Amino acid sequence: MGQKPEFQYVDEHFDEFVSELRAAVRQPSIAAQNVGMVEAAEYFTGLLERYGIHARSIATDGGYPVVYGEIKGDSDRTVLFYDHYDVQPPDPLNEWVSDPFAGEVRDGKMYARGVSDNKGNACARIQAVGTLLRLRGGRLPVTVKFLIEGEEEIGSPHLEGFIRDHADLLRADCGVWESGYIGADGRPGMYLGVKGILYVELEARGAERDMHSAAAANVPNPAWRLIWALSTIKNEAEEILIPGFYDAVRPPTEREMELLRAEEAAREAASSQRERQWRGGNIGIHSPLLELRGLELRKRALFSPTANVCGFRSGYIGEGQKTVLPSKALVKMDFRLVPDQDPADILQKLQAHLRAKGFDDIAVRPVTMDHPVKTSADHPVVKAAQEAALAVYGLPASVAPTQGGSGPMYPFTKYLDLPMVAFGVGYWASGNHGPNENIRLDDYRQGIKMAMEFLDRV
Amino acid sequence: MGQKPEFQYVDEHFDEFVSELRAAVRQPSIAAQNVGMVEAAEYFTGLLERYGIHARSIATDGGYPVVYGEIKGDSDRTVLFYDHYDVQPPDPLNEWVSDPFAGEVRDGKMYARGVSDNKGNACARIQAVGTLLRLRGGRLPVTVKFLIEGEEEIGSPHLEGFIRDHADLLRADCGVWESGYIGADGRPGMYLGVKGILYVELEARGAERDMHSAAAANVPNPAWRLIWALSTIKNEAEEILIPGFYDAVRPPTEREMELLRAEEAAREAASSQRERQWRGGNIGIHSPLLELRGLELRKRALFSPTANVCGFRSGYIGEGQKTVLPSKALVKMDFRLVPDQDPADILQKLQAHLRAKGFDDIAVRPVTMDHPVKTSADHPVVKAAQEAALAVYGLPASVAPTQGGSGPMYPFTKYLDLPMVAFGVGYWASGNHGPNENIRLDDYRQGIKMAMEFLDRV
Repeated sequence: MGQKPEFQYVDEHFDEFVSELRAAVRQPSIAAQNVGMVEAAEYFTGLLERYGIHARSIATDGGYPVVYGEIKGDSDRTVLFYDHYDVQPPDPLNEWVSDPFAGEVRDGKMYARGVSDNKGNACARIQAVGTLLRLRGGRLPVTVKFLIEGEEEIGSPHLEGFIRDHADLLRADCGVWESGYIGADGRPGMYLGVKGILYVELEARGAERDMHSAAAANVPNPAWRLIWALSTIKNEAEEILIPGFYDAVRPPTEREMELLRAEEAAREAASSQRERQWRGGNIGIHSPLLELRGLELRKRALFSPTANVCGFRSGYIGEGQKTVLPSKALVKMDFRLVPDQDPADILQKLQAHLRAKGFDDIAVRPVTMDHPVKTSADHPVVKAAQEAALAVYGLPASVAPTQGGSGPMYPFTKYLDLPMVAFGVGYWASGNHGPNENIRLDDYRQGIKMAMEFLDRV
Repeated sequence: MGQKPEFQYVDEHFDEFVSELRAAVRQPSIAAQNVGMVEAAEYFTGLLERYGIHARSIATDGGYPVVYGEIKGDSDRTVLFYDHYDVQPPDPLNEWVSDPFAGEVRDGKMYARGVSDNKGNACARIQAVGTLLRLRGGRLPVTVKFLIEGEEEIGSPHLEGFIRDHADLLRADCGVWESGYIGADGRPGMYLGVKGILYVELEARGAERDMHSAAAANVPNPAWRLIWALSTIKNEAEEILIPGFYDAVRPPTEREMELLRAEEAAREAASSQRERQWRGGNIGIHSPLLELRGLELRKRALFSPTANVCGFRSGYIGEGQKTVLPSKALVKMDFRLVPDQDPADILQKLQAHLRAKGFDDIAVRPVTMDHPVKTSADHPVVKAAQEAALAVYGLPASVAPTQGGSGPMYPFTKYLDLPMVAFGVGYWASGNHGPNENIRLDDYRQGIKMAMEFLDRV
């Protein structure tokens, strides 16, 4: 099938690429716990240098450093790749089949925390650019810049300041976002925006120490306080009850609904695999929330904000019985926001709501705030990515106007005015943030080729 | 002050008694985690033998053994001491000032898991009986039996069967319950009954693994399910909403209310220390539940059933941010019951309530069930204990018709028809089940004397 010589090189040297990826995931880099961060930044700086890309680590103001790479191309056009070298904590550890930092390969898949989110993408893109440089005597069709930060999984607290302070350095014509996933129907998935996020901790306190639960008739229980407070935030119909929460929600445009309908039609044609996925349960549930199906399901996924409990801890949570009256209760929550919701505004509304409901004893601590972003589906960079995907995968890309997840896309829009397209090496069952996160090595191979093809077409 | 020679012996040998207690608490014996149980049973068997009390370990049907001790007395009357050698888990470990299994003494107090609940009482009573035997040539005024079980903190699953099967062995005229506490006013506290308990685990499940919280728009969250279910069980006015929950609640008798009023009057006279305790906050809260004071507060403590969240665990509960959609949520709850509530009946009503509210997806696992018991305040054993207390402490005892806590008192009533009185070596701030559990060594010394005096007067 007349493969490009660069693609043939990828096939012949694939074991080396996989080894480099394995070395990347074997280096734990948990930003939330300050584990292995310096070492991981050094690994990526070294990998860029090894492929002939000028690289350096740039300090942030009190945060983890940004790994920056740059290599000039023949045209005056510039592409910026955005990735991150930090990963989520690996909990719950006992649900991993193999060590989350081993990078074990089973049945053609590599299992590791961060292999999909996001070290696989960072490595594949560096290897793609590096391979083009090797095979073309150091020349590239466009200038390429890499911004690989170390704080994505803790909400990128220093990224906005970094982009603002280094706007000239980072200037580009278009950006490639950190991740994209192959769908259950085999088509490469792309998306053009992200939800915003407000991550908060809610804490209630009772007595100053845990007490015998015989005292429960007379001593306030902070777990009950949080349960009652939370039950005023969202009801069983999934309606978020904070006054004004939905005020700024922009409904999908006609163009966005067209994309969704086209996507649903393609999925239907491709044998309703998506439907079976919900029924048969690759994630073990009988039905999605609210029993939604098809277009309505997808519309809700992309255009509805959420209020999610990420964690709840109070009292005795070990094995067996302990009759205790807890002294503290802590909840971690994330609200995923859609344009034009503003996380700071939502935080104020949450606080006002709790006060109004009599829960002013509950402390609200904001952890992360990111604005939602959608970039236009009409931009030429989207077309280039679609053409590249068709050439590499032999199937039309699945283009979503935004996605359910969040990310710090907002400063790229605000300071660099960058259109963003997302594609990558993960797939529909990569299990980001959960146990047994994994990618298929075949997707990894294609992902390297996809990045090359995109640079040739953009 | 004309001290009994036996009391003088206690004073002179007190360091030895404390050493024996320290050795007891240094042996962890966590029934819920099967830690150190055999060793603890051996310790108490050995301690009984060392004091000349015939002792043996009696196997239970699949549970931890019961330590049984017996020594004949001069009269035909028999006293049965009930204690337990197991302890609660020591969590939260990081809130202990010293190792929970070190038995460190600071400011005249010994700190250890189980020092108050219940090894201090078991040791003091053995030492009291043993000292009488030593000083009186092996003679006792009454026959004494010890039943020291190893499963009290996990709900005594084998005690009822043990008492049923060994009713002849255990036959007695009265019983001394495991614990009693010196009040903030210095008066020795006694109680004549226990609340019942229904301890359950409630579990909700969602996807088969934790997921990225970007999926929250479409995937059910088990933490929300539990929050909503729990909010239908008790409201902010502390009303338990399970239909029929209060049906069998017997109001306090006039005699019981008399005891309560007498108690309140004594407390008032003793300078309102109790009131200051709530306000000043030895437990760090501004006000008891529902802002109750005085008689109403005490009435609620003794005669109202409770619905308490002992623990809540779901999703990511570590430090920092993790954007996760949990796959599981688990709650541990205890309901403290009052006569004539039946724990099995309350369990059925809870299950029916959850079904009726649409929460049949939530698994309800009963862990412990104990019936509430109250014995009559008019029995002569109560008078004997009151007289002994006055002699030892120089203050009238504070007698409560029941207490907020639970315990397996029911089989003693059902199979042995035993009136029960409770007194012991703990005090109002012993902090049972919490971190830094402790007793005052002065109370320990008095507790040994109290047990001696009780045996002389009963």
